[in-house]
Amino acid sequence: MTEALSSPVSQGYSLLSTIHDPADLKKLSISQLEQVAAECRRKVIELVSQHGGHFASSLGVVELTVALHHVYQSPTDRFIWDVGHQAYVHKMLTGRLEQMDTNRRYNGLAGFPKRSESAHDAFDTGHASTSISAAAGMAVARDLAGRSEKVVAIIGDGSLTGGMAFEAMNHLGDVKSDVLVILNDNQMAISPSTGGLNNYLVNLPLNKTYNKLRKFVWDSISLMHNDIGETAKTAVHRLEDGIKAAFTPGAYFEALGFRYFGPIDGHNMEQLTKALSEMRSLPHPKLLHVITKKGKGFKPAEENQPKWHASAGGFDIETGANLKAPGKPAKPKYQEVFGEALVELALKDQTITAITAAMPSGTSLDLFQQAIPSRFFDVGIAEQHAVTFCAGLALGGFKPVCAIYSTFLQRGYDQLIHDVALQNLHVVFAIDRAGLVGEDGPTHHGAFDLSYLNAVPNLTIMAPGDEQELRDMLYTALYEVKGPVAIRYPRGTGTGATLHKEFTPIPVGKGRVLREGDTVALLGIGSMSQRALETAELLEKAGLNPLVCDMRFLKPLDTEMIDMAAAKCKHIVTIEENSIIGGFGSSVTSYLSHAHPGMKSISFGLPDDFVTHGSMQELYKEVGLDAETLAEKIQEFCKVEA
Amino acid sequence: MTEALSSPVSQGYSLLSTIHDPADLKKLSISQLEQVAAECRRKVIELVSQHGGHFASSLGVVELTVALHHVYQSPTDRFIWDVGHQAYVHKMLTGRLEQMDTNRRYNGLAGFPKRSESAHDAFDTGHASTSISAAAGMAVARDLAGRSEKVVAIIGDGSLTGGMAFEAMNHLGDVKSDVLVILNDNQMAISPSTGGLNNYLVNLPLNKTYNKLRKFVWDSISLMHNDIGETAKTAVHRLEDGIKAAFTPGAYFEALGFRYFGPIDGHNMEQLTKALSEMRSLPHPKLLHVITKKGKGFKPAEENQPKWHASAGGFDIETGANLKAPGKPAKPKYQEVFGEALVELALKDQTITAITAAMPSGTSLDLFQQAIPSRFFDVGIAEQHAVTFCAGLALGGFKPVCAIYSTFLQRGYDQLIHDVALQNLHVVFAIDRAGLVGEDGPTHHGAFDLSYLNAVPNLTIMAPGDEQELRDMLYTALYEVKGPVAIRYPRGTGTGATLHKEFTPIPVGKGRVLREGDTVALLGIGSMSQRALETAELLEKAGLNPLVCDMRFLKPLDTEMIDMAAAKCKHIVTIEENSIIGGFGSSVTSYLSHAHPGMKSISFGLPDDFVTHGSMQELYKEVGLDAETLAEKIQEFCKVEA
Repeated sequence: MTEALSSPVSQGYSLLSTIHDPADLKKLSISQLEQVAAECRRKVIELVSQHGGHFASSLGVVELTVALHHVYQSPTDRFIWDVGHQAYVHKMLTGRLEQMDTNRRYNGLAGFPKRSESAHDAFDTGHASTSISAAAGMAVARDLAGRSEKVVAIIGDGSLTGGMAFEAMNHLGDVKSDVLVILNDNQMAISPSTGGLNNYLVNLPLNKTYNKLRKFVWDSISLMHNDIGETAKTAVHRLEDGIKAAFTPGAYFEALGFRYFGPIDGHNMEQLTKALSEMRSLPHPKLLHVITKKGKGFKPAEENQPKWHASAGGFDIETGANLKAPGKPAKPKYQEVFGEALVELALKDQTITAITAAMPSGTSLDLFQQAIPSRFFDVGIAEQHAVTFCAGLALGGFKPVCAIYSTFLQRGYDQLIHDVALQNLHVVFAIDRAGLVGEDGPTHHGAFDLSYLNAVPNLTIMAPGDEQELRDMLYTALYEVKGPVAIRYPRGTGTGATLHKEFTPIPVGKGRVLREGDTVALLGIGSMSQRALETAELLEKAGLNPLVCDMRFLKPLDTEMIDMAAAKCKHIVTIEENSIIGGFGSSVTSYLSHAHPGMKSISFGLPDDFVTHGSMQELYKEVGLDAETLAEKIQEFCKVEA
Repeated sequence: MTEALSSPVSQGYSLLSTIHDPADLKKLSISQLEQVAAECRRKVIELVSQHGGHFASSLGVVELTVALHHVYQSPTDRFIWDVGHQAYVHKMLTGRLEQMDTNRRYNGLAGFPKRSESAHDAFDTGHASTSISAAAGMAVARDLAGRSEKVVAIIGDGSLTGGMAFEAMNHLGDVKSDVLVILNDNQMAISPSTGGLNNYLVNLPLNKTYNKLRKFVWDSISLMHNDIGETAKTAVHRLEDGIKAAFTPGAYFEALGFRYFGPIDGHNMEQLTKALSEMRSLPHPKLLHVITKKGKGFKPAEENQPKWHASAGGFDIETGANLKAPGKPAKPKYQEVFGEALVELALKDQTITAITAAMPSGTSLDLFQQAIPSRFFDVGIAEQHAVTFCAGLALGGFKPVCAIYSTFLQRGYDQLIHDVALQNLHVVFAIDRAGLVGEDGPTHHGAFDLSYLNAVPNLTIMAPGDEQELRDMLYTALYEVKGPVAIRYPRGTGTGATLHKEFTPIPVGKGRVLREGDTVALLGIGSMSQRALETAELLEKAGLNPLVCDMRFLKPLDTEMIDMAAAKCKHIVTIEENSIIGGFGSSVTSYLSHAHPGMKSISFGLPDDFVTHGSMQELYKEVGLDAETLAEKIQEFCKVEA
């Protein structure tokens, strides 16, 4: 590994290491800025090869980031990085170069901008499409306060498919506050961007002859103005608008009240610094269209962008080859088990459709996309639309399976209630990344879905205890339930459970006993059923004989199983990987308080706080959901409440 | 009143009364269709003057609705009415004319399209901006199934400001399914539409000379094609696009992958039927831009559209004059108390800003708009953006107060968590229409906010027991809390509490005792504190001496007050106007189960079901939140659990 890394590292970071603050970039020449950019790019590659992290996005904006910090004056001027996983270079240039190897680690730098880390991070991001709204708020505040700092939102073409970005542009185009939106156009979200607007952007030209011609036409129009009478003016104005439109490809943005500039080459430092300097002195909302290449400078990433969106590290920085020792064959990921099961079912059932909001690889629906492209739909980063689109599909006689991460389904919450549950439509929500997600941290943990879904009428809510149960739950959701169904399952690998070829329906609202016992009942749901079992083993050593149940359903709740547990055991414990408020523990406690008043119970779950980033093991320990901590606390509870 | 109505009624509904099904419109001539439209318009005016209801929107689409049903074939063809309050004429023409006087009444017709009412209602609506998503789903389903029905979404320019509509158009423009989107452009949401896109639409021309000129230019371009060599083709194509853009004002929609047609006069039956017939035979996504006048045909509504968006009825159908006997001066509405208090505070505090998502009158922020226009922001029907815009304002040094109805805040849920709470920003959410809303029904009840907000970290959640408490809570939220705050309050009038000029901060997380007692403790929150007091009076007659507490805060919960209640009383009752799952009762029960195991408690709230429409009294009775039912059930509970 040392050898593979040696060549770029040996080139050193002679200039980058002198940049302690963006102000240090001010005095540099174009060629020096280019050198800084080259060093940044090498640093990103080296960093991710060793420690993992988001990758291709940061490589795409190296020159843009250097140019921005050269022209603007952060932290007085505010940069808002949409999503934020492209902000590695920004972090390197704002005093965090030395800490970059702690990136995404527990107690280390966050993988996204974080106001608590640096004054240069103007807004915490993580989810897509928020940057223009935040920028609009900051710009309006600046105007009201009579200040003069500049506000810049940097947003990818993928994030532009989120309706929120449209809402923000539409509002900003009306209030006319000075904001620069930089459209970082790489034709990709994590996977290739989709949508009509994307097709439109692809056709915008970037070519010198064209730009010369454009200048000629614009000049001619100016001359024309001197030669026409009042009556002809309206007609000429309209013609002028049309000709301008022909030579100003951003008519879409102009319609929203933005001035459109570009497209320019996002890897050309001279073009970038020149354009940004011009932008900085223009008032009002404007959009600069910058064409970049995701993964730029790292060939394997340029050639397979979805694969290199992020990396776990441990690869050769020249070839991208995996340098990690091949381990034993890994247990399958939950998402893969889901993706494969859905394809199996859909090959036999022509009514099954699969919907993702720009996450085909993250949800493993890419398997469906390859197997049955006609019934696969990637709607863009557009969770609101995804959910109601499913409602329409259901009414049209199909069975939509809508795969969305827990944290992103928060974006489709109203649609889930208003368009799906209220009409009691048969839409299956496959809620991936439910629970902690590790290194991505608080913006990405799926900490709330059991709470926000619990009160939704008509909804069946389940969570598999292992990957075989996920297969059967998917089958059950499609064939045993009539209305809306949510199945929530975690990030990462399953338990290694044997996978059966056949699907077996699960009785709706029925849990299962994982371990017989009679002292304390551990009721787990989803990922925490298995944790309950591990905890039981520790408790057994301490002389307890715990009953362990995989409750499987939050709604309908298996009250018979709770009755059974209450009859057998003196104490009841609930464990869930979801906020302690309003979810599984809350439902069990409410039931107990009425059906078994006086029953001693305690609930474990995620705290009423945002959980930081780190490895899953570190985070479980931090929130007390590791088996050791659970066993300790349960023993104490049983002792105190004896 | 009879006299005032007599003139239009006497004109009769001779033609309308023969329309029992849209098929009956097929054979009618243009002039007969015009007569049907005139009769529909009179019927809407008569209906709303007597029974109240949404008004101006339906008057605007009379001709459009008649023309649609003449040209298309519902229910095979699917009409999706965005929001749906403009669907009165649609209901009249689809077999529900006789039932229209039960509109919005308990057990009567719903004020919005309802699939359970008629096969002609293709999709249940209520919230804005959902129609194109639903249409896209239905159209794709049709294509997959090889069917040929047509799908039409009718959406207002106001609803087009919702990001979800953009997401749907962007997706549909890519998949290219056959959908007709009718842009019903009246330049209004409930209040005048805002946004860059709206400014753009205003400038689209509707003029004969222009349309002739346009035809000439298009024809010339076609001729040109025969005369150019291969090399010049690209340049000419681009010029062509530009000239087309000059004469096709819908470049915005074309960018998204739609063909744009219009604008046409939405009150001209001949133009409408002709255009719709052409649309019906065109494939792919297309948008027909129709200019209508909200309130058309009823002068008072044409002149003051926000006022006549909806009416409680009881007005003269010629003049709009109120015919109801003037009652005693009404108690102030919660929304008015909020709007006035905020203006009082903001006149003294330059940092307070007010934000609404297209609801200035519905939230009474129009008072703020008039008093301090520079710090008032109507962002359009764009809750997602509204919330994150507030985050930006807060970071820019201002105190944003974001007034959104409970049911619509579901649209900004992710932003509230991810952009406000996670950064612990000081944004005040004024959540109006929390609890039941009466006649608007299940799409508009604020049934879930206590549940979906409860698990959000850093959030302070309060609900006033009367309108004076609302004033003080607003003050407290602005000056005594540092992070995000939610204040939820109901639709309608307050309790008539005396309003104090001075604002008094409320200790955060502290309730108050409304009535001393020692048998059963009634813990109410928000609107239900007062109901608890009424219930206590009934219980007193039955020999109980209830303690009544206005708990005021869901978060932080006043556990000391619960301890006090548990010490004094044998039974604890919680009452809230929110889903029984995951809200106030759930939090109290969880606390009791750990702090006071064995304590007998029961919770009352909205059922785990969607609640229908009707008067508040009827609905309270239906869900068992009227004082009589509560008293009865509490007595029974105290007896059984004695």
